[in-house]
Amino acid sequence: MSPSQSNQLRRAYGFDEVAIVPGDITLNPDQTNIELVIGNNTLAIPILAAAMDAVTDPDIAIAMSKMGGLAVLNLEGIQARYDNPGEILAEVSQSPDSKITALLQKIYSQPIKENLIGERINKIKSAGAVCAVSLTPANTKRFASLIAEAQADILVVQSTVTTARHISKSYRGLVFSELCQSVPIPVVVGNCVSHNACLELMQTGVSGILVGVGPGAACTTREVLGVGVPQITATIDCAAARDSYLKESGRYVPIITDGGFRKGGEVCKAIVAGADAVMLGSPFAQAMEAPGRGYHWGMSHPHPALPRGTRIKVGTTGTLEQILFGPTSVTDGSQNLVGSLRTAMGVCGAATIKEMQQVEMIIAPTIITEGKSWQLTGPSA
Amino acid sequence: MSPSQSNQLRRAYGFDEVAIVPGDITLNPDQTNIELVIGNNTLAIPILAAAMDAVTDPDIAIAMSKMGGLAVLNLEGIQARYDNPGEILAEVSQSPDSKITALLQKIYSQPIKENLIGERINKIKSAGAVCAVSLTPANTKRFASLIAEAQADILVVQSTVTTARHISKSYRGLVFSELCQSVPIPVVVGNCVSHNACLELMQTGVSGILVGVGPGAACTTREVLGVGVPQITATIDCAAARDSYLKESGRYVPIITDGGFRKGGEVCKAIVAGADAVMLGSPFAQAMEAPGRGYHWGMSHPHPALPRGTRIKVGTTGTLEQILFGPTSVTDGSQNLVGSLRTAMGVCGAATIKEMQQVEMIIAPTIITEGKSWQLTGPSA
Amino acid sequence: MSPSQSNQLRRAYGFDEVAIVPGDITLNPDQTNIELVIGNNTLAIPILAAAMDAVTDPDIAIAMSKMGGLAVLNLEGIQARYDNPGEILAEVSQSPDSKITALLQKIYSQPIKENLIGERINKIKSAGAVCAVSLTPANTKRFASLIAEAQADILVVQSTVTTARHISKSYRGLVFSELCQSVPIPVVVGNCVSHNACLELMQTGVSGILVGVGPGAACTTREVLGVGVPQITATIDCAAARDSYLKESGRYVPIITDGGFRKGGEVCKAIVAGADAVMLGSPFAQAMEAPGRGYHWGMSHPHPALPRGTRIKVGTTGTLEQILFGPTSVTDGSQNLVGSLRTAMGVCGAATIKEMQQVEMIIAPTIITEGKSWQLTGPSA
Amino acid sequence: MSPSQSNQLRRAYGFDEVAIVPGDITLNPDQTNIELVIGNNTLAIPILAAAMDAVTDPDIAIAMSKMGGLAVLNLEGIQARYDNPGEILAEVSQSPDSKITALLQKIYSQPIKENLIGERINKIKSAGAVCAVSLTPANTKRFASLIAEAQADILVVQSTVTTARHISKSYRGLVFSELCQSVPIPVVVGNCVSHNACLELMQTGVSGILVGVGPGAACTTREVLGVGVPQITATIDCAAARDSYLKESGRYVPIITDGGFRKGGEVCKAIVAGADAVMLGSPFAQAMEAPGRGYHWGMSHPHPALPRGTRIKVGTTGTLEQILFGPTSVTDGSQNLVGSLRTAMGVCGAATIKEMQQVEMIIAPTIITEGKSWQLTGPSA
Repeated sequence: MSPSQSNQLRRAYGFDEVAIVPGDITLNPDQTNIELVIGNNTLAIPILAAAMDAVTDPDIAIAMSKMGGLAVLNLEGIQARYDNPGEILAEVSQSPDSKITALLQKIYSQPIKENLIGERINKIKSAGAVCAVSLTPANTKRFASLIAEAQADILVVQSTVTTARHISKSYRGLVFSELCQSVPIPVVVGNCVSHNACLELMQTGVSGILVGVGPGAACTTREVLGVGVPQITATIDCAAARDSYLKESGRYVPIITDGGFRKGGEVCKAIVAGADAVMLGSPFAQAMEAPGRGYHWGMSHPHPALPRGTRIKVGTTGTLEQILFGPTSVTDGSQNLVGSLRTAMGVCGAATIKEMQQVEMIIAPTIITEGKSWQLTGPSA
Repeated sequence: MSPSQSNQLRRAYGFDEVAIVPGDITLNPDQTNIELVIGNNTLAIPILAAAMDAVTDPDIAIAMSKMGGLAVLNLEGIQARYDNPGEILAEVSQSPDSKITALLQKIYSQPIKENLIGERINKIKSAGAVCAVSLTPANTKRFASLIAEAQADILVVQSTVTTARHISKSYRGLVFSELCQSVPIPVVVGNCVSHNACLELMQTGVSGILVGVGPGAACTTREVLGVGVPQITATIDCAAARDSYLKESGRYVPIITDGGFRKGGEVCKAIVAGADAVMLGSPFAQAMEAPGRGYHWGMSHPHPALPRGTRIKVGTTGTLEQILFGPTSVTDGSQNLVGSLRTAMGVCGAATIKEMQQVEMIIAPTIITEGKSWQLTGPSA
Repeated sequence: MSPSQSNQLRRAYGFDEVAIVPGDITLNPDQTNIELVIGNNTLAIPILAAAMDAVTDPDIAIAMSKMGGLAVLNLEGIQARYDNPGEILAEVSQSPDSKITALLQKIYSQPIKENLIGERINKIKSAGAVCAVSLTPANTKRFASLIAEAQADILVVQSTVTTARHISKSYRGLVFSELCQSVPIPVVVGNCVSHNACLELMQTGVSGILVGVGPGAACTTREVLGVGVPQITATIDCAAARDSYLKESGRYVPIITDGGFRKGGEVCKAIVAGADAVMLGSPFAQAMEAPGRGYHWGMSHPHPALPRGTRIKVGTTGTLEQILFGPTSVTDGSQNLVGSLRTAMGVCGAATIKEMQQVEMIIAPTIITEGKSWQLTGPSA
Repeated sequence: MSPSQSNQLRRAYGFDEVAIVPGDITLNPDQTNIELVIGNNTLAIPILAAAMDAVTDPDIAIAMSKMGGLAVLNLEGIQARYDNPGEILAEVSQSPDSKITALLQKIYSQPIKENLIGERINKIKSAGAVCAVSLTPANTKRFASLIAEAQADILVVQSTVTTARHISKSYRGLVFSELCQSVPIPVVVGNCVSHNACLELMQTGVSGILVGVGPGAACTTREVLGVGVPQITATIDCAAARDSYLKESGRYVPIITDGGFRKGGEVCKAIVAGADAVMLGSPFAQAMEAPGRGYHWGMSHPHPALPRGTRIKVGTTGTLEQILFGPTSVTDGSQNLVGSLRTAMGVCGAATIKEMQQVEMIIAPTIITEGKSWQLTGPSA
């Protein structure tokens, strides 16, 4: 920190610290439009499933696409390293806690197989689904053309912190502007959390930005590195970068808030903070169809020298369709995420995502009191 | 959020975050006047019981009226759907937790019976009590004239978020200005939480406003939709709207803070924040006479696709009279609500509700320390 | 609240939210002077024991005085109602929780006996101790002259909230300016928490002010009435009133922060906030010699209609002398309160209470983290 | 507090309340330089082990030096009082909790033996390690020349709060400017937390400053004395003093944040706040080689009249080398501290400690929610 900043540290906010203010006009939820456009792909709902092994496999990618969303397949995970991923996933779900970090370190030390990349993409494409796949920057040069040839629709390049400028003596880093020109499909990159980093990434020609570093409690990036920006502030800042870039370039690059979501209310808050879409991990890991089989783990977990993450038992709460659209009998907001978003847009009088981004938000921390507060409010809307 | 607001999110406050500052003058509690006027009805005490099935039935409405308050009967609840509500209430109180959401979804899918609306109102009126009944906006056009004919005294039109302007393609929404002109009784509407929404509602000619969206912990609106404003801030903002409207119109429309109350101290804080009255749910669900039989549940609970609320065991702590007036041997503020209000007005030197609204309030969050703080202060006032 | 204040609620602070900043000079603790002057009485240490039945009886008053402090005997408590207080105190300590409020309501409904007032004062005086006794305003007119005749040294007039102006139709309230002129001993009054109320009380001629309303967790005034100001802010505001009054009158009226103390560090913070002395309840209720026998209860507890307080098991941790002066083997700051104060003054370079009041304080909330933080700092000073 | 400050108490921040914002440029971790210079000693890594008996003995001092860090040997601890420290350390680790304070009070009442000072230093020096030893100000005059003769490399003079000006009637205090001129080795002093105290200490000619008073939860200085400044604010303020002193004198005096660390992320935050190095206690007490044998205790603990600290079971989590450099299978940041620092510098684009001190930090409190948040973020960097 420069000394001049010492007395003016900026306060940042997370999901639990804000609330959405209802509007002066209300709207029937069925009149809302929540489309998301990434490059030439239009999605009916602005919800992505994360590129994590417990969340997305080819079957999930197909199912999500049919329901209007998008699940991103991680091409550095189990699906791209093992001919029979099911065996490995079973092994992960059956491992005791004491051995899980070592097991994951071993599993992810196996090489990525080029033929599996093609196979996985083909399976998704031949089902008629939109196919999005992800790589880290380090592997992108190696596999990008292979992915494009296999006719994936969207390439996601993702690491904990990604910038347009990376300095390395040992190798020439990935140059996003070159990548965007060389591959014929939209490129989404991340993660980033600050205005300038986001703006510079947009200027390389990418078609989408993932926003969020270290937001989750089980992602231990914040404990291990001290690095992280809470999601509401990160989204506000990157949304401002998007708007600046739109003015300077005429091109609209959607931002996708990624990480930390557990409930529909948080999805609504991210949109009000300025997101065009959201990417969720753990809520989808809870789906009956999820490859994690009731468990969830981070892709930073198996780092050999500095692991950051934990495997967590998330359980199974309903079908993928229930999680997205209901109906549901759980009352905590973890299911019917689309219903939550449309209903919140209704009470805010917002007909589109763009209008929802203009709604007022306040700082209203969740207070935990001794005697649990259990007052209920009036009849349903 | 508009980008310009990003660094200036407004902080909002709830009951647990503020405290009332005693005055420079003190006053004997028995010299306080706490009357509430709604239209042509004057109530001796500014306390309403919520329009919820666990709180208000015709017997409670009669008893509350005799004690100077007002209990609002929900005409979309069990009382208006079943000839014998007692059976249904017993079933709810005996259901295991695992089946309660499905049971409530089934119970509230039965149709409202017009003849029961008349019967319930008649019972209350023939006992000489003030009769207040509630509907959601969607059902108001259908039943409003029936209610007026049955000679109810006050009509409450209530939903989670209500505005003067609602947009729908499928039906022509309820127009409050038309409603107020067509029914010959005072109309109270809500809920709202912001200055402008409150002002616009007052401009339609209504006689009272319910303030509060999502304040309770078991009302899961905030988890499901992300929407809500803590009660102190909501009350301050709507009180300012009331004062603006009084200046522009010469008409005084009381605001009634609704939801989130557990203790007398919170009632006092709502009044200091600017409320003319308060509406409570769970404290009255704890009365021996309450129809909920020791349980409480929200009216948003049984929503078929997106339930928001939980049934909670609240227990039975005393009679309705003890809850309102004491005497009591509980020391946590959950009984003798009127005594709390009058005593607080005394230590603040406020002889009327209007004067109590001018008292100073500070931000003083409840701190939970490891070792429980148990210091006591001096002798009683 | 007046609408103009709505966006500018003042933040108030309690003990757990602040910390003292060490000085640029340090000082040997044995060079500090911590005297307190009330009227014509000079106390060696600025620590008072509260006028509560679990804390102060005549023996404690004598012992405290000999050690340089002051214990205030409550003349509306068990000592003034019962010939044999020991029996009653035993009964309280043996009552089960379920019956304690009713028992206390009964015990405190017995009349005060005038002869006992004289006896208790005589016992303290004849041991050569400074004798301070307390009454509520309602009983002060009746007993003040009796107390003066019995040659008590200090009269404390105390209620939850006390002001210079009290309005009542049923009786003519106590006028402090008349009281101060009619009794020949210093009068200390309280409690108050705000600048103006404190200033007005000083202007009546009193010799000391008790500061604090509702600071403790077991004092339920804040739950029941919503009224209270955290002790650091209350002390800062009343200290400012004292300084203003000194300028306008040339007379110095000490302020005594009362309530909420558990540890030496809190005593130090109160002094830095501006207090001239502190009054403690529960830490002294933990003394082996304390009349509460390991229990503590508030004097607002037995209010017949609106009880505010709870009996708490505080246990017995050491002798009165250890609590004041050590030596001790407890490391949580609950013993050797005088050692704490002198050592803190040393690291702040403050030779007198007056200098300690000028030391810097910061806002530094106690943070409770998941994994308990257990880092220790370097060698002892 | 002076009355004028009453409304402007400064907010101070600790580790758990801030987070580091990633940079606009990223950097390979292996390109970072993290050297620390103290006087004429250059250390490869800016990490010190605390001068505490559970942390540092001669073997640890040798091992730390070989790995590039520095462990400070306390010359007022067990190593300098007992010929066979192992016996005493075993006794401490085997004592029940109930007897530990009394035991430590007894152990530390034994005299310091001059011959042992020489022996311990010789052992470290003859192994080719950099030798740093510590004393309190009270003993410094007596032993300083002995230490210099034994050819220690760095003298640390440490107490809870140290200033350049100490007032005492009973003895002439240590004058640091005289000390620095009389001993031929670099002198590091502390602890201090504020800008002015730090600046005055630098002006005496010392070669390093220890920053931090009362930051840990088990160090009970804050409970006992009320004194303390959270580490982020203390570091920011003292770093500003260092920069001012550099401008006025041309001499760079490194500041070493000391106390409160548990995780690598906290080390990174201290550096961003302005520290040149960090000193850790409990993380090193967890090393297999640590003399505390799975326990840790403070050096203020055995104070005879006012003990401040507790013995805590910290357990044994790995080797000293794992704690510093990994590899590790723990995911909470308590191991591979150097890897954490280099990786964080990489995502912040900081090639040197000096550049890391310029990185942005935000206020982002750790929020503890009811349902544990367990969302994970994307693939590893």
